[in-house]
This record gives sequence, structure tokens and C-alpha cells, in this order.
Amino acid sequence: MNSTVDPVLTYISAHERDFVDDLREFLRIPSISTESRHAGDVRRCAEFVAEDLRRAGLQGVEILPTAGHPAVYAEWLGAPGKPTALIYGHYDVQPVDPENLWNSPPFEPTERDGYLYARGASDDKGQIHLHVKAVESYLRTLGRLPINLKFIVEGEEEIGSEHLPALIRAERERLKADFVLVSDTAMFGRGQPSICYGLRGLAYWQIDLVGPNSDLHSGFYGGAVANPAEVLCDMLASLKDDKGRIRVPGFYDDVREITATERAEFARLPHDDAEFRHSIGVAELFGEAGYSTLERMWTRPTLEINGIWSGFTGEGSKTVLPSRASAKLSSRLVPDQDPDRISDLVEAHLRKICPATVTMTFTRMAGAQPVVTPIDHPAVKAAARALERAFGVKPVYQREGGTIPVVATFTDELHAPTVLLGFGLEDDHLHAPNERFLIENYFGGIRTSALLWDELGSR
Amino acid sequence: MNSTVDPVLTYISAHERDFVDDLREFLRIPSISTESRHAGDVRRCAEFVAEDLRRAGLQGVEILPTAGHPAVYAEWLGAPGKPTALIYGHYDVQPVDPENLWNSPPFEPTERDGYLYARGASDDKGQIHLHVKAVESYLRTLGRLPINLKFIVEGEEEIGSEHLPALIRAERERLKADFVLVSDTAMFGRGQPSICYGLRGLAYWQIDLVGPNSDLHSGFYGGAVANPAEVLCDMLASLKDDKGRIRVPGFYDDVREITATERAEFARLPHDDAEFRHSIGVAELFGEAGYSTLERMWTRPTLEINGIWSGFTGEGSKTVLPSRASAKLSSRLVPDQDPDRISDLVEAHLRKICPATVTMTFTRMAGAQPVVTPIDHPAVKAAARALERAFGVKPVYQREGGTIPVVATFTDELHAPTVLLGFGLEDDHLHAPNERFLIENYFGGIRTSALLWDELGSR
Repeated sequence: MNSTVDPVLTYISAHERDFVDDLREFLRIPSISTESRHAGDVRRCAEFVAEDLRRAGLQGVEILPTAGHPAVYAEWLGAPGKPTALIYGHYDVQPVDPENLWNSPPFEPTERDGYLYARGASDDKGQIHLHVKAVESYLRTLGRLPINLKFIVEGEEEIGSEHLPALIRAERERLKADFVLVSDTAMFGRGQPSICYGLRGLAYWQIDLVGPNSDLHSGFYGGAVANPAEVLCDMLASLKDDKGRIRVPGFYDDVREITATERAEFARLPHDDAEFRHSIGVAELFGEAGYSTLERMWTRPTLEINGIWSGFTGEGSKTVLPSRASAKLSSRLVPDQDPDRISDLVEAHLRKICPATVTMTFTRMAGAQPVVTPIDHPAVKAAARALERAFGVKPVYQREGGTIPVVATFTDELHAPTVLLGFGLEDDHLHAPNERFLIENYFGGIRTSALLWDELGSR
Repeated sequence: MNSTVDPVLTYISAHERDFVDDLREFLRIPSISTESRHAGDVRRCAEFVAEDLRRAGLQGVEILPTAGHPAVYAEWLGAPGKPTALIYGHYDVQPVDPENLWNSPPFEPTERDGYLYARGASDDKGQIHLHVKAVESYLRTLGRLPINLKFIVEGEEEIGSEHLPALIRAERERLKADFVLVSDTAMFGRGQPSICYGLRGLAYWQIDLVGPNSDLHSGFYGGAVANPAEVLCDMLASLKDDKGRIRVPGFYDDVREITATERAEFARLPHDDAEFRHSIGVAELFGEAGYSTLERMWTRPTLEINGIWSGFTGEGSKTVLPSRASAKLSSRLVPDQDPDRISDLVEAHLRKICPATVTMTFTRMAGAQPVVTPIDHPAVKAAARALERAFGVKPVYQREGGTIPVVATFTDELHAPTVLLGFGLEDDHLHAPNERFLIENYFGGIRTSALLWDELGSR
């Protein structure tokens, strides 16, 4: 179709193993943004990314400080008159606990059965790295790119991208682009590429209940004093009815119901509940009544316990009436829910149902707007063609249940739509032990990236 | 009243500080029986106790092995024709977590405001040690004791005394006594000595729920898969009604209601709910409707969460849908409840309410029968007189909410009643950070012990 890209594709095929070796170096850095003891590793990782972009031939490479972890910028602007794409990704990763459930160490990338296992392999180091390798493949062969490219790679995505919006505002001119490209999502399935046009938002909280001023002996006091762990269970259990509907007043007020068209399209996607159930090892699925599994994951909001702890959790038995009980909770949000308003509603409801036997602290930890992107933008169409050329299969259009907090900021600050072009798989074990990235998708991603610039530059 | 004991009391007064120094050595040993990494410390502590008994002048000192941690035996049988008392205590202690809430290190005994702070100070090292010091005071002054004494000091009380019943059965002849004396309870209040005639029993369990075969990304899967932490909260919240009554079918079937006399006597005790509330720092008390605070703690069964954990419990936010959720639960039991029957009822009920979205493992961890002791036994009466002589205040008769698993075994195997003579205080922070023992009660306990032998020997 377009022979100018051929040397680039040939270079990619010849260097696949080198690319994987480079990715391993990236994955070895434990850049866990939420754990302060890893702050040095996060910094080191930013420096690695800067050097990686420089080695690929990008220019203007700069580590941009924020009030938290830094972001890395790079550009290649040698195609005047052609479109400009801003590629966004993140080099920070999730914590690794429970570490004992990993089959190989999370920061020693290990190949098994065609997958590369490591924390961050799919989310998001592998997916940002494939774009760097596409750039390298162009610049080492043709000496130029078909369009203008900018990279912004941040270090706080896993903790809610707290300082990125301010950075984007401050750097609005330098980051200006016709569209933003994000590879931080999954393909619909193995061998089935897809373009994602919707993401859920997020609101994340911690609640801490304090009852007695000290842990008490459950024999002496048990029966006469409210147990904060029990109060917490009561409160959390009351947040949903037995059909999975959230009982916080006003929670669903701003939810935009999906259209009949979307519903019909999702129903046509090759999803099988039995297979899905089997893949995660549960005997029965559970979710909000009246919605399919894909609808529940992509288009319905949640209110979920991410962590809970109280009292004695060690080996053996300890007869304690705990002084404190805590939980981490979050909601995935859908258009047009707003994280601040949902946080207000959840906090007000919890304060209302919290009994006088304990005191509650409610801490807001992260928030992100839900987004839906137009699917008729030229970059979206070009991405669809690039995917078909790279994978030999027409992509499907889907939404996704996860959150990329920064996408809403790009919309607001750069007035640029975001194209979500993901190469992960649903069972990559993101945020869990044994995270992995299918190596053939890493290679397919490099080719798709190269072909996308070709598609956009030749028009 | 009885001048032969005067040199003993004089010796006690002259050696108070030496006694405290000796107790500190005992408290420095981290004999945490439930934590396998402390097994060596537990063994070392048994050796310390043996040496301590030997130094006091006791004979036949022997470390008796069990299938778990050993017990220590000692005796003085030089008063033929006089009664024989078996003194029971335990040298093992509870875990210390959360250690960061201790104001001084748990195994560096520290004096503050008349209290000695250390794990085990009151439960039970301080209270077994005071009897050793009473023996020392007799043997160093009069060269003899007024009655025959035996000591059995075990190392597994805090983990349910699993191997002690077998040991008591095997050593039935050597342990034979007219009564058993246990100092492992609290006085009614500071300056108000008491004799305890009832203890609650215990049944302790762990439940583990497993949902998905791995922690899942709460964005991708949230809303479509049951969250084990939420299932656990739902199950636990359903175990009691909003009046604090346990909803496990059959749970109350064997509960012996207290008599009108007991109820009237408890009502006369100088207990004040506002003061009690203040002492533990809660704005409001909570317990089973229809019972007073003392009745709830001493005479009513409980079903309580001792620990709960699931998902991400570290610093910051992690958007995980946890694979597992666990809780430690226990019931304090009252006559005539049986720990095995209650375990059967609780397990059956939990299995019944556990949904198909998770699998549950139910583990039985410890059990102990509740006990009530006759209050007209000569040893009980002698103890009352000894307390009055040592503290200058008439003791009250009370029950207690805690559990001493072995008491039921003594009743069954030795056919000997147990006298519960405690010198702790309700706010000694047992099983909690900053455990302490009032030093004046330690001294008062030594005097009471000496005077009790005097009372019994002079009759």
C-alpha cells in the first residue's frame, strides 16, 4: 500500500529481540509511585525514559519537575504542514504486594509462554516503549518521521496524576497537538485489536473509624462496647442492596444511560460469560441487575472496597476488640458523574449512617473524570487502518472500565481529542501479581505505531 | 492477728524493689506463644521460670515438655496434714502489634506513674511472679510454708492451652491438690479487691473467602465480579441485629440466665457507665439490649470480629478488586454453652449464608468451656480474709468476661475447685499496646499470697 514505510517495518522485524532487551531494562526499575521509599527509583526511571527517548533520536528531551514525581518531554517537529500527535504514557507502576503470589520477581522481567512477566509490563511501560521503538525505527532507516510527534511520559498515573493537570496547563503551548494518543488500555481480546472510545472515571477514599482509645481485651470488654470492625462492616454492607445497586442517595442522578445502538453493538462483541468466569476462576458472576457483563464493566458506576483492615491479622489467634478499623473505597464513574460531587454524596451518606459509638475520618485520595471520545475523528480512522494493517484484523470499537485521569485534562486544556489505542489484554493481571504483556502485542504495537504515522503523513 | 507471719511481711516490705527488679528480668523475655519465630524465647522463658522457682526455694522443679510449648512444675510439700494448693499461671504473652502504639518498648519494662509497663506485666507474668516472691519470703525467714504448695506455669495460655489438658491428665497424681489458685484476673477496681467466681468460655475461628483467582484491576472488572471483601462485610454484618443480638440460629439455646440475686448484687457494685465510657474513650456504649454493662461483660455471650483484612492496606491508593478476604472471629461463651456446639452452629450458619461467588474456608482455632465456681469453699473464704488483711478493704464477689481455658480442665481432672484471685485492673491494657501492672497491686498481691497460706495453715 505505501512502500515508503517498508524499510521501517523491515528494521522492526530485524530488531525485535533488541527491543525486548531494552524493555527489560525499563521494567527492572521499581518505580512504584505510591510508596515513598521508592521515590529514588521513580526519579531514576524518569532519567531512564529521558535517555531512551534521546537514544531513539527525539529532540528537546527534558525532565519536567512537578510538586510530585517528574514527567518527561520529547519532540520531533521536522514535518511542517503535517499533523502533530502528542503521545502520553506513564512510567510509574502499581505496588507489588502480595509479593509472595508472584511466580517470578516483579522487577526481574521473565519470559514464559510468549508473555513478558513484570510489574508495569503492560501498564504502562511496555505500551509507551513501543512508541519509542517505532520512532527509533523511522529515524534509523528513513531519518525522518511522516508527522510531528511529542511525548509526555508522567510518573504519577497510578496515584491519580495529581500534578499533571497543572503541568499541562503550564506547558499548554509546548504540548499543543492535533490529537493525543494514549496506549494504556487493552485490545478486546487476543488477536482482536480494538479502539477504545470511553473510559470510566474514579473517586477514591479512605475511611478510618476509631472506637475505644486502645485495643481492648475481647473477654473483659466484649459485648459492652461497639467493635469498630463490626461498625465498619455494617456501614459498608449497607452501601448496596442485594441486587448490587448502590444505595447512596443521589449516586445515579448524573449517570447517562447508554444508547440502544451502543447496547446492540456491545451485544455483538465476541464476549462469553462462561469463558470470562472461567478466566478469573469464579463459580458465579455478580453485578448490578439489568445489565450485561460488558455494560457493567464499561458503562455502569461502581462503589467498591479496595482494602479493609482492623485488629489482629497475624498468625494464630489474638482475642482483641480492635480500637480502629479502616477501609479504602473507590467508585468507577461514568458520564456525566463528577468525582467531587460523588465524593460529597458518599461522604455525607457515610457520616449520616456512622453511629455515635465511633468517630470517622473520611479522606479523599484521587479523582478523575469519566470520558467518551468521538469515533469519527481522522486520527481514529487512521488508527483503525493502522491496526488492520499491523494485525490483519479489522478492529472493533469498545469502551473500557478503567480510568486514565489525564484524558479529561487533555480535552479541557489542549482542546484535542484522545485516541485510545491499547495493546494490553484483559488478563494481563494489571494491579495484581504476575502482571504480563503479550510479546506479540508489543511487536504488533510497534508496527501499528509506525503505520499510524505513515497513514497520517501520507494524507 | 497471727504474729508468725510478721517476719514474712517485714521481709516483703524490705525487698519490694528487689522483687520489681526480678520481675523486670521476667518481662524482658518476648515469650509470644502464637508467633513461631518466638519459639526460642518461649523456651528461654520456661527456663527462666524454672530457675526463679528454684531460687525461691521450691523443690522438684521440672520443665514438663508438651507437644507445644513446655510447662514448669515445682512444689514444697513440707506441711503434712495441712492443705495443698496448686498455683496455676502462664509465662507466655500476647503479640505486641501494633507496636508503634506502645509508649515504651513492650519488652523493656518501664515504670511510669506507679505502673510497670510491659507486655505480660499483668497477664500473667506479674501475677504468677508475686506467688513466687511470697514463697521466697517465707522460706528465707521462717524456713517453711504453712501449707503445701505446687506450681504449674504453662506456656500456651494465650493460644488456647492446647496441650495442657493432656499434661494435666498425665500428671494427675503429681498435681493433686485441695484447690487450684489462679491469679490471672483483675480486681474489681483500684483499691477494691475482689474474688472472681465466674469466667466466660471461648471459641475462636478464622474464615477465609476466595473469589477471583488473582487480585483484579478494579477498573476492568469492577461491577461485574463479586468483591470478596464486600461479601465478607455482608456476611459479618448479618450476624447481629441492630440491638446487638446474635442471629446465628441456636446460639442462645444453652445460655443459663443469671439469677435475680446475682443481678441485684451486680447492680450494687460501684460501677458507673459514664466513668467506664470515659476510661475507654467512647462517646456511647453498645451491647445487647436488656442487660447492664456488667451483665453484658460477665454473663452474656458474644460473637465478635477480632481481625479483618483484604486487598490493599498500605500507604496511598491501589485500585484493586481483591481476590481474598479474611476475618478472625470469636465468641465468649457463658454457662452452659459448649465451644464445640457453638462452633458447629456458627460454621453451619456461615456456610448457609456464603454466596456461590466465593469459596469459604472455616478454621477452628481455640476453644474453652465457661466456668462458675462455688463461693462458699474454705479456700475462697480464706482468700477473702487474706485480701482484707493485705488491702484493708473487704473484697467483693464478681464474675469476669475473660477466659482461662484451663480452669474447666482442673475441675474435670483434679476434681478441685478453682479460686480466682486477681490483682490486675480492668485498664491494664491486656492484649493491647501499653499493657501495665499497678506496682502497689504487685506488692499487695505478694502480701495476700503470704497471708492466704497463713490463713489456711493456722486452721
